[in-house]
Amino acid sequence: MAATAPTRAKTAIVDTDIHNELPSAQTLAKYLTAPWRQRHELLGARSGKRGAGYPRSVTGNARTDSWPPSGLPPGADLPFMREQLLDRFNIEHGILNPFVPGPGVLDVEYGAALCRAANDWLVAEWLDPEPRLRGSVVVPFEDGELAAEEIERRARDGRFVQVLVMTRTNEPLGRRKYWPMYQAAERHGLPIAMHFGGSTYGPITAAGWVSHYIEDHVGAAQVTQSQVTSLVFEGVFERFPGLKIVLTEGGFAWLPPLMWRMDRAWGKLRAEVPHLGQPPSAYVRKHMWVTTQPMEEPPSGPQFLQTLAHFGCEHMVMFATDYPHWDFDAPDTAFPARLPEPLGRKIMRENARALYRF
Amino acid sequence: MAATAPTRAKTAIVDTDIHNELPSAQTLAKYLTAPWRQRHELLGARSGKRGAGYPRSVTGNARTDSWPPSGLPPGADLPFMREQLLDRFNIEHGILNPFVPGPGVLDVEYGAALCRAANDWLVAEWLDPEPRLRGSVVVPFEDGELAAEEIERRARDGRFVQVLVMTRTNEPLGRRKYWPMYQAAERHGLPIAMHFGGSTYGPITAAGWVSHYIEDHVGAAQVTQSQVTSLVFEGVFERFPGLKIVLTEGGFAWLPPLMWRMDRAWGKLRAEVPHLGQPPSAYVRKHMWVTTQPMEEPPSGPQFLQTLAHFGCEHMVMFATDYPHWDFDAPDTAFPARLPEPLGRKIMRENARALYRF
Repeated sequence: MAATAPTRAKTAIVDTDIHNELPSAQTLAKYLTAPWRQRHELLGARSGKRGAGYPRSVTGNARTDSWPPSGLPPGADLPFMREQLLDRFNIEHGILNPFVPGPGVLDVEYGAALCRAANDWLVAEWLDPEPRLRGSVVVPFEDGELAAEEIERRARDGRFVQVLVMTRTNEPLGRRKYWPMYQAAERHGLPIAMHFGGSTYGPITAAGWVSHYIEDHVGAAQVTQSQVTSLVFEGVFERFPGLKIVLTEGGFAWLPPLMWRMDRAWGKLRAEVPHLGQPPSAYVRKHMWVTTQPMEEPPSGPQFLQTLAHFGCEHMVMFATDYPHWDFDAPDTAFPARLPEPLGRKIMRENARALYRF
Repeated sequence: MAATAPTRAKTAIVDTDIHNELPSAQTLAKYLTAPWRQRHELLGARSGKRGAGYPRSVTGNARTDSWPPSGLPPGADLPFMREQLLDRFNIEHGILNPFVPGPGVLDVEYGAALCRAANDWLVAEWLDPEPRLRGSVVVPFEDGELAAEEIERRARDGRFVQVLVMTRTNEPLGRRKYWPMYQAAERHGLPIAMHFGGSTYGPITAAGWVSHYIEDHVGAAQVTQSQVTSLVFEGVFERFPGLKIVLTEGGFAWLPPLMWRMDRAWGKLRAEVPHLGQPPSAYVRKHMWVTTQPMEEPPSGPQFLQTLAHFGCEHMVMFATDYPHWDFDAPDTAFPARLPEPLGRKIMRENARALYRF
């Protein structure tokens, strides 16, 4: 725990998106059972991943000052994370969303073994030594049954507070193949965090493959919108009324216009989706949350506050730093406007405390 | 011209999106030269089109009251269009965006011949008999050179006021293969209208193929966003500083948040796109226009006006009915708020008059 007072934050904060990293590609080997370990050492994981990653290198997406003195990669050194993030910014609780091999592996059985290993690693090397941290269950989400099995395996450990899914998927996330995962998450009251990233069978935008990383990065919003649309119109929330979804690192200023657009379309086309008992926006407000980083920042503070007001409620937005990634948001400089109270407290702490039952 | 006074509009209006239809699949045959006519009658056009169309049938996307007494399909009967749209709503100028075979045909030479035939048909059967109507140049847009040739062929006829491109394309529209088309359009001062529709090589959303038409319909906004991003970051507006783009039937409430998102990303990643001399939003405001139908409608009038104010300028939004399609917007009932003046006049008439030089 912190020995010194936080230097940049007086009030306690919940950080809903921290990325811890594997120290090396071999770390998971010791958490794998024998046949999988052999395979891991012989071949390693094949994923279809294209797009979403900062192109320079695996850890090239990190803040340049986030390389620990230990020589480990950014995000892989817990003492340094304590110093640089948890202590400095008075992070009361921080949720780990590790990007590890497993979820994107095309052989889903091997992927499931890697996810089990990653969750064991999370417990042993992060949650056990640091009580401020909470974990996301890493699951092989392209197979709903295998993902559900991993959720069942972790649900007893209250330090796992959500399930981690990437937003670029093989099929829209409302599809039935993903439903066993939702059923398990609902049963245990675990939100599903849909974090930007992953890969698709097709191009990473609806217009095709893009030339620049900046287009890929801006495109995080578009794929997240497509997933919101799919979850709502497939009737996932009618089938799983206790399901909660957190949209992580996909932006959020676009969500009110998307709610308006879906409601207007539903007003004219509801005969196609008779399984929906409420307007689309009602499902969004009841079942979805968003995290702040990276923010769409309008040129004026009042416009930012209007955008937050367009949500029509104050419980949905939760603060995140995205530590240690290059576009990190510091709690004290992240917002383009001074947040009025109690909205500020809700975004920085209370909304996450309520959702995750801290 | 109208013999009677308009019944539902006192002030003149410009309608920037009207869909006239071919009376039958054989209509274009008489406008095709001999070898193409033979092929057209033997085989017809093969397109890769999937998604975007109202699924019931080709004209199943029409208002049920838009079937003319003549027995022709909706949008194919000019006298009935005069009565039901131009006269009734005091449409001073209406821009035709016909969906015809040609642009989506996989054999681009044959597609180019069909586009030429369609433009001849537009002149002979629509622009010649009705002076209130203006035409969009139909082009085989997947081939920049062939598209440029068709633009050259039509540019002398001032009744063609823009070039028609669909938003679902084989590659993002910023790519160089499309540049000859932009060069020709810029040379002749013709805006490019990017109208929702078309087909892609990949799935129609960044999350994959969707189950419902309502998701496809909501997805119009996502693919339009991807195209805006591509056009801006590929540097199209630096290369063609006179180019103008009209985003038709893709919605518009999402555009301010997208400008904010692009500006923020550019602030951190501009080294990847050194060819951009200005923030992304500056290109959008200088080079892009949007049409109103279908609108994202917030639950309150003030929120709608705030959204319009978030554009940061008043010249970009232009009214459209989308006649005769099922989600038609009547000028007197389209808006969820009473528009203040002069913004109302600008949206209903003046912005389009300025852009199209009426």
